[in-house]
Amino acid sequence: MPLFARSRRASVASLGEVGLIAAIRRWLGPASPPAPFGGGDDCALLPAAPGRSLITVDPVIAGVHFDDRIPARSAGAKLLKRNLSDLAAMGGRPRAAVIALALDGRVSRRWLEEFHRGLAVESRRYGVPIVGGDVARLGGAFIATLTLVGGAPRRPLTRTGARPGDLIYVTGALGRSRPTGHHYRFQPRLTEGAWLAGRREVTAMMDVSDGLAKDLWALAPAGAEPWLDWPALPRRGSATVRQALSDGEDYELVFSVTARADRVAFERAWRRHFPRTRLSPIGRWVARGTAGRNGPNERWGRGYEHLR
Amino acid sequence: MPLFARSRRASVASLGEVGLIAAIRRWLGPASPPAPFGGGDDCALLPAAPGRSLITVDPVIAGVHFDDRIPARSAGAKLLKRNLSDLAAMGGRPRAAVIALALDGRVSRRWLEEFHRGLAVESRRYGVPIVGGDVARLGGAFIATLTLVGGAPRRPLTRTGARPGDLIYVTGALGRSRPTGHHYRFQPRLTEGAWLAGRREVTAMMDVSDGLAKDLWALAPAGAEPWLDWPALPRRGSATVRQALSDGEDYELVFSVTARADRVAFERAWRRHFPRTRLSPIGRWVARGTAGRNGPNERWGRGYEHLR
Repeated sequence: MPLFARSRRASVASLGEVGLIAAIRRWLGPASPPAPFGGGDDCALLPAAPGRSLITVDPVIAGVHFDDRIPARSAGAKLLKRNLSDLAAMGGRPRAAVIALALDGRVSRRWLEEFHRGLAVESRRYGVPIVGGDVARLGGAFIATLTLVGGAPRRPLTRTGARPGDLIYVTGALGRSRPTGHHYRFQPRLTEGAWLAGRREVTAMMDVSDGLAKDLWALAPAGAEPWLDWPALPRRGSATVRQALSDGEDYELVFSVTARADRVAFERAWRRHFPRTRLSPIGRWVARGTAGRNGPNERWGRGYEHLR
Repeated sequence: MPLFARSRRASVASLGEVGLIAAIRRWLGPASPPAPFGGGDDCALLPAAPGRSLITVDPVIAGVHFDDRIPARSAGAKLLKRNLSDLAAMGGRPRAAVIALALDGRVSRRWLEEFHRGLAVESRRYGVPIVGGDVARLGGAFIATLTLVGGAPRRPLTRTGARPGDLIYVTGALGRSRPTGHHYRFQPRLTEGAWLAGRREVTAMMDVSDGLAKDLWALAPAGAEPWLDWPALPRRGSATVRQALSDGEDYELVFSVTARADRVAFERAWRRHFPRTRLSPIGRWVARGTAGRNGPNERWGRGYEHLR
């Protein structure tokens, strides 16, 4: 379905601001609670929650994160899911989200309805109410920015904490996310992330969104580089090693497990909890310059560059 | 200073994504705490806080909320302040913010540095760390979206709660916000809002951002309309009544005070706490259709329409 309407009547501008906000509330349905716990006041009120919180923000932009070839519902779903993937990467549980829309008045009402219906489905699936937002005009463009607030686990997993010798694991498969539609069909690894945050063996974690070749460096202990077992790299379908390393938008978890861990027991526990989520030990951290053919070399791409 | 650079060397694209994120951290300085409490991980970790939270989101968009005639520093300051104004409207105290930037690679590095330096000044002034964000490209545009999280007072003031007969008050002055530069020079009414949330007389509150003529309806009790004392309407400089009602971007507080209140004592307490903030009783809520010449009539404009 095209993002822009052919006629003014079919555009969001014909609704006016008040009409558009009312329509969004209607499209979101139960995913949009009434004020003061949801939209309609200056701020939304979030119930008291024990412990620390997590917060993250990511947009979807027409022409960057989706285009007319993917269903509007999937673009809406992707907006929430890519933020949930960031929360999963620290082991968090989602609590609430707000959305800022900036769009051209010519955006199609039907397209925007489908976008919000797709968002509402995921909002209910993961129990994340959309508690507020903002609508502003932006000529020729569509951008929806979602901020997600979650509850932190007792020991949030950060990107810092891996030690030389630690094993490197990755969930699912990597590469060819765009051509296979994985980039909008993926399910964020929330339950897996929360479970991993409760395991003492896990020393650091992040999600793979810009390609392993780029993201893995953020997990690297000081003075270390990854030694990768190339055949163990889980590739999506016909993806090459290079595609698995560089394509990005995998929305999988990559994490380190301490070298002292009982690896067999850890993998067995994983399979018991997540029999349908593939887990691959793909290598380990070694001193920089010692990985040789198994290290970062010309086979590595550069990952996704956001500011070309 | 122009938003777009004349040469690639002077543009943000020349920094690359990693370089740009590092530069933003540098420009923000102490306003940007290190991970995991600030940027650099998948989410930011917020310390545990008692009570309920408030959340709000608002962007600044080049060509909508600012243009080249205002300093880049002021555009950055405005981004935070307009969100603080929403928080003030419920009596909240700021805790942390995240920012999503979507911009063209041709945006000037110097402009963006000034933008962040202006933001950093307000961030320190109001004690709101910028704990995370995202950078994405968006051809031909600049939009910065800030989500603000705050602590709620024991009794957050919402837009609902005014009763027929209640008095209507407004802080500061209204109208001509654009030509006078008030739209970026204003100070959000945070301390006033928090104080008002602690006063039993106050029944409902919001901030005036789209013009009183539009915003006041959101405070109206069912079946009521405002009776306005036209000469009492505080106007900015040479603003006409119509401009005071319709220009928008006032970022003042409008609130209702119960008819049973000791009005003299309330106003005296206000002057003691806020000797430099003007407070005007501008009218009261009456049954719909009874305000006559003092009610919503042809003198009212329509306020600011976001989706023209």
